[in-house]
Formats: sequence, structure tokens, C-alpha cells
Amino acid sequence: MTSEDFLAALRAVGEQGYHHRHPFHVRMNAGELTPDEVRRWVVNRFYYQRSIPRKDAAILSNCPEREVRRAWLHRIVDHDGHEGSEGGIEAWLRLAEGCGLKRAAVLAGEGLLPGVQFAVDAYVNFARTEPWPVAVASSLTEMFAPDLMAERLAAFRAHYQWVPESAFDYFRSRVTQARVDSGEALGLTLRWCDTPELQRRAVEALRFKCDVLWSLLDAIDHAA
Amino acid sequence: MTSEDFLAALRAVGEQGYHHRHPFHVRMNAGELTPDEVRRWVVNRFYYQRSIPRKDAAILSNCPEREVRRAWLHRIVDHDGHEGSEGGIEAWLRLAEGCGLKRAAVLAGEGLLPGVQFAVDAYVNFARTEPWPVAVASSLTEMFAPDLMAERLAAFRAHYQWVPESAFDYFRSRVTQARVDSGEALGLTLRWCDTPELQRRAVEALRFKCDVLWSLLDAIDHAA
Repeated sequence: MTSEDFLAALRAVGEQGYHHRHPFHVRMNAGELTPDEVRRWVVNRFYYQRSIPRKDAAILSNCPEREVRRAWLHRIVDHDGHEGSEGGIEAWLRLAEGCGLKRAAVLAGEGLLPGVQFAVDAYVNFARTEPWPVAVASSLTEMFAPDLMAERLAAFRAHYQWVPESAFDYFRSRVTQARVDSGEALGLTLRWCDTPELQRRAVEALRFKCDVLWSLLDAIDHAA
Repeated sequence: MTSEDFLAALRAVGEQGYHHRHPFHVRMNAGELTPDEVRRWVVNRFYYQRSIPRKDAAILSNCPEREVRRAWLHRIVDHDGHEGSEGGIEAWLRLAEGCGLKRAAVLAGEGLLPGVQFAVDAYVNFARTEPWPVAVASSLTEMFAPDLMAERLAAFRAHYQWVPESAFDYFRSRVTQARVDSGEALGLTLRWCDTPELQRRAVEALRFKCDVLWSLLDAIDHAA
């Protein structure tokens, strides 16, 4: 595939399989979730959020290219935070608190659904076992995240006014951060998935990642 | 074991098995290595140096404790460097150049011995597959590194004057850095290896790591 065809194949996977079309997500954006459903989503999605640094560290661990590791490292810091900057995991905990959940309960994984745990663990395991350029490609759902985040932020402000504005820092920060991150990840994917076999596996990796996110919502939707 | 007994057991392993007693190391410090032997050591030890961030990323990937990950992350940066700071891998490449080696050849692994590769890969694999507190304990050879680095620096200045002082940045920086790092790692080991079973595995992990470093020098010594 040329770079253009490769990029088109990646985009087609996201347009078809990204979780913005999941019924639970459609109901969320339409303002149709009950407070309990919102909280269930927040608690379960937290398991995904807290696992991201472990996924990114697995990519680092598999990558022998120092320059790539240097470019990828900030993702761990973005989520774990560092002195003077709270990071995405802490921001998500404040979203949970804004939704009326207890911080300790969220950290203890109360209400975490097996299907969510299986899907997220599969994602971390994928990053551990696949070649690092393929694992990088699996993160390309970020290409579709900024639009989704912007819509989600508008939907929460419009429909879930019982959640305070201060809880939305995570959504706000990801609109721009996901744009930068997906640009980086796309550049690395185009550069390092440089054989037909790796290109094919990159497209499959993105499909797999879409399945992970979709399965999360399946489990959350069916827990009613 | 009490903390005191546990610490004593760890120290005993290092005093007995750390590579400062290896014949090749004794000859190095006595000024008895030929320039070719020094270069062979530098090229092969580079494979260890460049693998350290992958080992530390494996520990991060296995660790669900955000605070621990935040404390451990700087090790990756210390070796890989970041904008405006070259890092340990680059410093080692300058040592190699100071010894008359070509940078490209070192990066391509020319002269890398199979026994060295096996030992280093075993170390990275250990960090990937063992519980993270046990993998942390394996890094405790750092407790013995500052003295060794100080002696090595003095030996190089005294006996290998064909290597310019500017090549010794790595040795210099590690004297203090290893002291800080080993303090951190020891604190984590005492805190998180909190069962008899984990304590036993921590002591074994340190013995294993001593074996890794010892095997490196065996392979280098026998390649003559």
C-alpha cells in the first residue's frame, strides 16, 4: 500500500468500528442515561484509563529505538502525572467524584465489570506481545477521539447538569491532547509499519482496538 | 525476616556475588587490560546500557501502583535522555568514541558477544515476567555500584591515559546517581516485598542480577 492507501485503510476501520456509534454512546450523547448509568460508565472506563500507562510502558519496553521511546514517554506522564501536574488518571478520579462516586471505591474497582476487565487486559496484553509498531497503530483510535470528546463535553453540559463543570477537565484536556498524540502515532505508524505484512497488522490492530472500546460499552450497556 | 535481616541478606548476596570480584574486573582496575580488551568491554557493556530503559519500562508496565510508576519513570529518562539532556546511553557512546570506536559500529552491535546478549536479554525478560517488586529488587546491584564506579574512574585515569577525560561522564554521573537510585529501590523493596515468599524471591532476584553481570564479564574475558 502507498502511504495514502494505508492511511485510507486505517481511517475506514475507525469510521466503521469506533465506539461513537455504539448504542450506549448514542444514548449518552442524547442525554438519555440515568445517573446510575453515567456512574457505571465512569467507574468502568476508569479501569481503561488507569491501564493506559501500563500499555504505553509495554510499548516502550518492546521498542529498541531510543528516539521513539523518547517521543512516546510523555504518554505515561500525561496519565500518571508528575510533581505539580495531576495527570489524566487523577482528572478522571475528579470526574468520578463529580458524579457522586467515592474515590476509594473507584480505586478499589467497586462495580468493575468482568467484560470490561477482560477487554482492557486484552489491550495491555496486545501491547506486550505484538511488535511495537503494531501496538503503536492500535492507539490510532485517537484519530477519532477529539470529535468524540468535543461532542461528549457538549452533551454533558447540556444533559447532565447534575455533574459540575469542574469534573470535565479530562474531557477538555483530551480534545487537544488526542489531536497531538494521534498525529505522533500516525507518523510513527506510517514510518515503521513499512512492509505489507506490518501494514496489514496495523490495520488489524486498529480494528482490534475498536473492538476493545466497543466491548467496554457492550458490558456497561448490558449490566442494567 | 525483619527489615534488618532482609537488608542483611540482600547485602550478603552483593558482597559475595557482585562483579567487582570478577577476574576481568580485577585486571581492569589493576590497569592490565589491553586497549582491545577495554574496547571489547565497552562495546559489550553498551548492550547492557541500551537495554536498561526496556527493563525499566517492563517494570512500569507490570506495576499497578501509580505512585511507584511516578517514582520509577526517571530511570528511563536518565538513560534515554530528553530534550536538552543527553542521558546515559549517549554518555556511553561518547565513552566508546573516546576509546577509538566508531559510533555507528557500536550502535550496530559489531563485536557483541552471544553470551552478553543472552545474559542481558535474560535480565529484560526477568523484569517482564516476575512480579514488579521482585524485578525492582533485581536492580539492587546499584547498592554496590557507587564504590565500583569511583574505583573504576580512578583506575581509568591512572592506567588508561589513552582514553580522554571527556569520555568518563558516564562513570562520574553514576557515582551519585546510583546512590540515589539504590536508596529508592531499597525503599521500594523493603516496602513491597512484604511476605516471606516475596522476600525470598527478592534475595534470589539480586543473586540472579549478580549472575547476569558476572556472565557479561565471563563472555568478555573468554573472547580473547
